[in-house]
Amino acid sequence: MRSFTWKTIAVTVLGILFPLLLRGQNQAAQHPLEALKTQEYWIVYDVLRDSGKIQEGTVTHSVLLHEPAKDKVLAWKSGDPLFREAEVILLHKGVTIEALVDITGHKLESWKERKDVQAPAIMNEFHELGDVMKKDSRVIEALKKRGIIDLAPITCFADPFGYFALPELQGHRIMMGGCADAHGVYLSWSRGIEGLQIKVDATEKKVLQVVDEGITPVSQAPANYMDLPAAPRAGTTPIVVSQPLGPSFQLKGSEVSWQNWRFRFRLDPRLGAIINLAGIQDGDRFRSVLYEGSMSELYVPYMDSSIGWANRVFIDAGEFYATGDVLKPLRPEIDCPSNAVYLNSLSAEEHGFPVIRSDVACLFESYSGDPAWRHFEDHQMSGSGARVLVLRTAAVIGNYDYVLDWRFERDGNLRVAVGATGIIETKAVKAKNASEAGGSAAASGGAHTMAGAPDEFGHFVAENTVGVNHDHFFSYRLDVDVDGVNNSFMAMRLVKRQLTNPMRKSIWVAEPSIAKTEKDAMMDIHLDKPAMWHFINPNVKGPLGYPTGYELMPGTTAASLLDPDDGPQKVGAFSTHQLWVTPYQQDERYASGVYPTESKGDDGLASWTRANRPIENTDIVAWYTLGFHHVTRAEDWPVMPVMWHDFVLRPFDFFPQSPVITLPPAP
Amino acid sequence: MRSFTWKTIAVTVLGILFPLLLRGQNQAAQHPLEALKTQEYWIVYDVLRDSGKIQEGTVTHSVLLHEPAKDKVLAWKSGDPLFREAEVILLHKGVTIEALVDITGHKLESWKERKDVQAPAIMNEFHELGDVMKKDSRVIEALKKRGIIDLAPITCFADPFGYFALPELQGHRIMMGGCADAHGVYLSWSRGIEGLQIKVDATEKKVLQVVDEGITPVSQAPANYMDLPAAPRAGTTPIVVSQPLGPSFQLKGSEVSWQNWRFRFRLDPRLGAIINLAGIQDGDRFRSVLYEGSMSELYVPYMDSSIGWANRVFIDAGEFYATGDVLKPLRPEIDCPSNAVYLNSLSAEEHGFPVIRSDVACLFESYSGDPAWRHFEDHQMSGSGARVLVLRTAAVIGNYDYVLDWRFERDGNLRVAVGATGIIETKAVKAKNASEAGGSAAASGGAHTMAGAPDEFGHFVAENTVGVNHDHFFSYRLDVDVDGVNNSFMAMRLVKRQLTNPMRKSIWVAEPSIAKTEKDAMMDIHLDKPAMWHFINPNVKGPLGYPTGYELMPGTTAASLLDPDDGPQKVGAFSTHQLWVTPYQQDERYASGVYPTESKGDDGLASWTRANRPIENTDIVAWYTLGFHHVTRAEDWPVMPVMWHDFVLRPFDFFPQSPVITLPPAP
Repeated sequence: MRSFTWKTIAVTVLGILFPLLLRGQNQAAQHPLEALKTQEYWIVYDVLRDSGKIQEGTVTHSVLLHEPAKDKVLAWKSGDPLFREAEVILLHKGVTIEALVDITGHKLESWKERKDVQAPAIMNEFHELGDVMKKDSRVIEALKKRGIIDLAPITCFADPFGYFALPELQGHRIMMGGCADAHGVYLSWSRGIEGLQIKVDATEKKVLQVVDEGITPVSQAPANYMDLPAAPRAGTTPIVVSQPLGPSFQLKGSEVSWQNWRFRFRLDPRLGAIINLAGIQDGDRFRSVLYEGSMSELYVPYMDSSIGWANRVFIDAGEFYATGDVLKPLRPEIDCPSNAVYLNSLSAEEHGFPVIRSDVACLFESYSGDPAWRHFEDHQMSGSGARVLVLRTAAVIGNYDYVLDWRFERDGNLRVAVGATGIIETKAVKAKNASEAGGSAAASGGAHTMAGAPDEFGHFVAENTVGVNHDHFFSYRLDVDVDGVNNSFMAMRLVKRQLTNPMRKSIWVAEPSIAKTEKDAMMDIHLDKPAMWHFINPNVKGPLGYPTGYELMPGTTAASLLDPDDGPQKVGAFSTHQLWVTPYQQDERYASGVYPTESKGDDGLASWTRANRPIENTDIVAWYTLGFHHVTRAEDWPVMPVMWHDFVLRPFDFFPQSPVITLPPAP
Repeated sequence: MRSFTWKTIAVTVLGILFPLLLRGQNQAAQHPLEALKTQEYWIVYDVLRDSGKIQEGTVTHSVLLHEPAKDKVLAWKSGDPLFREAEVILLHKGVTIEALVDITGHKLESWKERKDVQAPAIMNEFHELGDVMKKDSRVIEALKKRGIIDLAPITCFADPFGYFALPELQGHRIMMGGCADAHGVYLSWSRGIEGLQIKVDATEKKVLQVVDEGITPVSQAPANYMDLPAAPRAGTTPIVVSQPLGPSFQLKGSEVSWQNWRFRFRLDPRLGAIINLAGIQDGDRFRSVLYEGSMSELYVPYMDSSIGWANRVFIDAGEFYATGDVLKPLRPEIDCPSNAVYLNSLSAEEHGFPVIRSDVACLFESYSGDPAWRHFEDHQMSGSGARVLVLRTAAVIGNYDYVLDWRFERDGNLRVAVGATGIIETKAVKAKNASEAGGSAAASGGAHTMAGAPDEFGHFVAENTVGVNHDHFFSYRLDVDVDGVNNSFMAMRLVKRQLTNPMRKSIWVAEPSIAKTEKDAMMDIHLDKPAMWHFINPNVKGPLGYPTGYELMPGTTAASLLDPDDGPQKVGAFSTHQLWVTPYQQDERYASGVYPTESKGDDGLASWTRANRPIENTDIVAWYTLGFHHVTRAEDWPVMPVMWHDFVLRPFDFFPQSPVITLPPAP
């Protein structure tokens, strides 16, 4: 690491900030893993336009960097020629087309019609279908029955739904949804029109079916979160975080250096933040930890069997790029502290033109006042304050906001955190509250007689308004490369051993075992059968003779309770286990497959691992499922306080000794 | 809440700081639950001295505030006469004596000899026994065999050990330990002399037995953590947290007001920080949440069956007041940020004199840069930064440091966090490292052939040095009083329901059930049988008809793997379940009983709950077990980076709507 004087720091800070202001989107790519640049989107556009294959009505659904094969990237050195490709998904008259464009060579490499899959949805499609629904006579009739004549404040919306085993859906691009009435308010959250389920054919742009189960008045629960107090609560004094000499990290293009961490990142329209080539600078030597880390899929099944609700199953990342394309601006002092820097991203709209999205990521050093380590001994207090580097985005998926963090810690830990906030999905019910609803189990204090109660599938959060039960499952793809490409997964199981010791009858011992194949590495968390999950490099030993490694430490998480052969669960099958390990395959990037929309689960983690491939001492990828069940409460309405979940990758025999030992006391 | 102008704030800040400087230890008590004051310790001392019952050789082992009955405290109002009592544990010639002193009335209320229990150990006793051990001829012989003639750098130490079912221990005050050699270094961590186990009678002050299993050289692993770099790592720029107008909290005696939180705390010599009367100021109304919260016990069994190690089982709080009496000073910018205020405590030394312990707690507002909530909608970004009030202490139990937090959040959450750091316990072994030790399973990549390997019971962390496997279990006692004294525990179980819906085969529903008796409320965490833990007030309904409540949300935790009928496990039996609920009893304060030392488990949670008492709609107490298994790694030596664990009490239908909705954007 360069040695700075305070004088050179000031120069360096300017040197960091100036390129930041340019934000780099118009620069040429400097590295094979950088996000697509403005000019590259236009090359893709030109190549496709000039190919003669684009017809009237062909719509661009996705333009992503096609990640080069890993060995090519690892062999690449600064100054080598770049190889840049884009993978494009187009939709033409209901047929999904995959195109691969060689950006460097300005040519179309492949063009494939895929009649067996469904392209991800795009915002424009949702808007178009919304208009179709609003104009359908059966919908107009159903609204009229509810006294709604003025359609201007009405919005209708249809979504994909994972997979339902209904023969009539087979081969069609079907979505299901309903309408909401924003009359009298700013926005339509909580204003759903219940009892209606509208099935649309997204190719034919027509309503197939309207099921109307009868009238429930629209909820009047105010989502008044915008009427915020302007002044702080009485007695609140300001709290100020500042870095008078600027940040300690260096950001060069999309490469970050901070303390001994080095990593790259890009903001991908499908997955959001993708971390690459993360590792530790150890003197002259760079030691790899993670070739790539990103969220890979997001599965949110609702738990209400009624009309208009049973269809609410979201495979958010793959169905509509909910973790990348929906990144929304971050606001200083709300989302990130005042010492943060902000970053932009690009994604393609329906013609393939690049659209810039401003301030959708922030990077900052955080100090919460906690110690990194401490010890008191013999009247001496030693230790160091904890400082963390945070890369943050916020994915806003309609009502929900997910704050998505990659947190680099100075002890070598890499913490991945998901904060769920925003607005919950609610359902209008006739009963005003749980007291009125006689059958409500929670209200009556635990009688199991809630069948038919208005809060059978949720919990009242406002008058006539029930927050509906649901799950959130995030699959994180972690291409671990601890000290090199070939790693093994070692489960260290803690097992009770009976003793014949006069004092003690039992202890536990740690029994390590290397997973030979994928089935050995499907891990479920049990408190009575604890196991530690180690990713080791069997070819590199530390000074104490153990293989170097990183441990994945789960936080609180959840497993899916649904039937494995339930349609949506087949698509969200990654939620069955908390950990999976697969051999690296260039095209295995998405836990529910490339096209989860109506996919039947024939692509993705559960499907690939049926082959039970060998995973020992080879290039492996870990897939961690972070999940939580959500029963809502009054405090979640109208806005949910952030609920954080996280997991940690931490060094285990990676460093020869405690990495915090070289930290100075001040954070 | 009072409404401040900025001018009055400045006055208020001074008004807060001035009493802080006095620190309040010399003031008279203002509230029945305040910690014992200087003059009160002296009254206790005088009453006992003048009672004529103190004999030559009677030693004070504990002087604690005797908490008044809850109904008396709740009925007490400012201005009412105070009732103050101290409970004293004395030790005279091996006999434990319990005394109760009426401080207000200056009289001895009771004096009880307890031949059936063992008093907690005190530092002086450890030092005395250390000297006894060093002077024993068998110990001298054993050291000589190891080439140690110069005894000056040698320290010997014996500890209590929970309970071992050995008949010769019965009725005696026995401790077991060994010696360490600090020759050549600052301190003796890692310098244990292996193969020696010394059994002492703490009453007779003599060594009963020396077991010598043979020589292993003392580890030379440097615990060089004191040789810290003075200057920051190159490139590190300062990060500054400040509150130019002072803190937002008010501290009046031991009462804290912050935002809408109100609570009291005291620093107890046995348990450390005790939170009392915590609740929410809701307009004119104070709404109670927690009558009392504290750690109640700490159980740390080591997992090595060899000589000198099988005896290492610590019941830290009850055996030697490890969570309270060992509170050590906190250092600015390491332990707490620069905007923190610091607090003192008092405890009694062996004569009963009060000893002041400076700066052993800190109180501060923390802002890490995270949002409290956020939502983006229609080009508008709304939300608020998260600010947290932290009350922190650090218990230093020899080698280990526990950072112990009570974190009050503005969304009504109360988060309890434990950060484990300091120095791990290590064992010297003959093998230099795992490569040399052929049988090491972890080194050989998972063969199960480790029996007899030097790292059979741990993991090499330095040359010839094995960090020994162990567990940490903390029992937190939470006397929940949600909106009043009478509460119920409601388990809300998420249960799969099969559907006949054409789209979905399964969902889950939430099935609440009220625990009638203690056995219904022994909760174990299972991912496939998830349950939410609610503490509700069945007598107070919120506007939506549900009882008001708080939910206890566990973080990552662990259950004990030991045999339930193993001696130490009987004493640390609270580690069997993650949650217990009992009816309030004034004298049920400690999860392993008042006297865990050699207790056989006949007092404490597991014992009380055998009666399976009713707990519905009555005054109940929750006991949460926070635990983790610890397999050490190279990165834990010589100092452990802080590892945090936490759990949360969060409002569930306590507020009528989201409490963050009234927060301004700035944190």
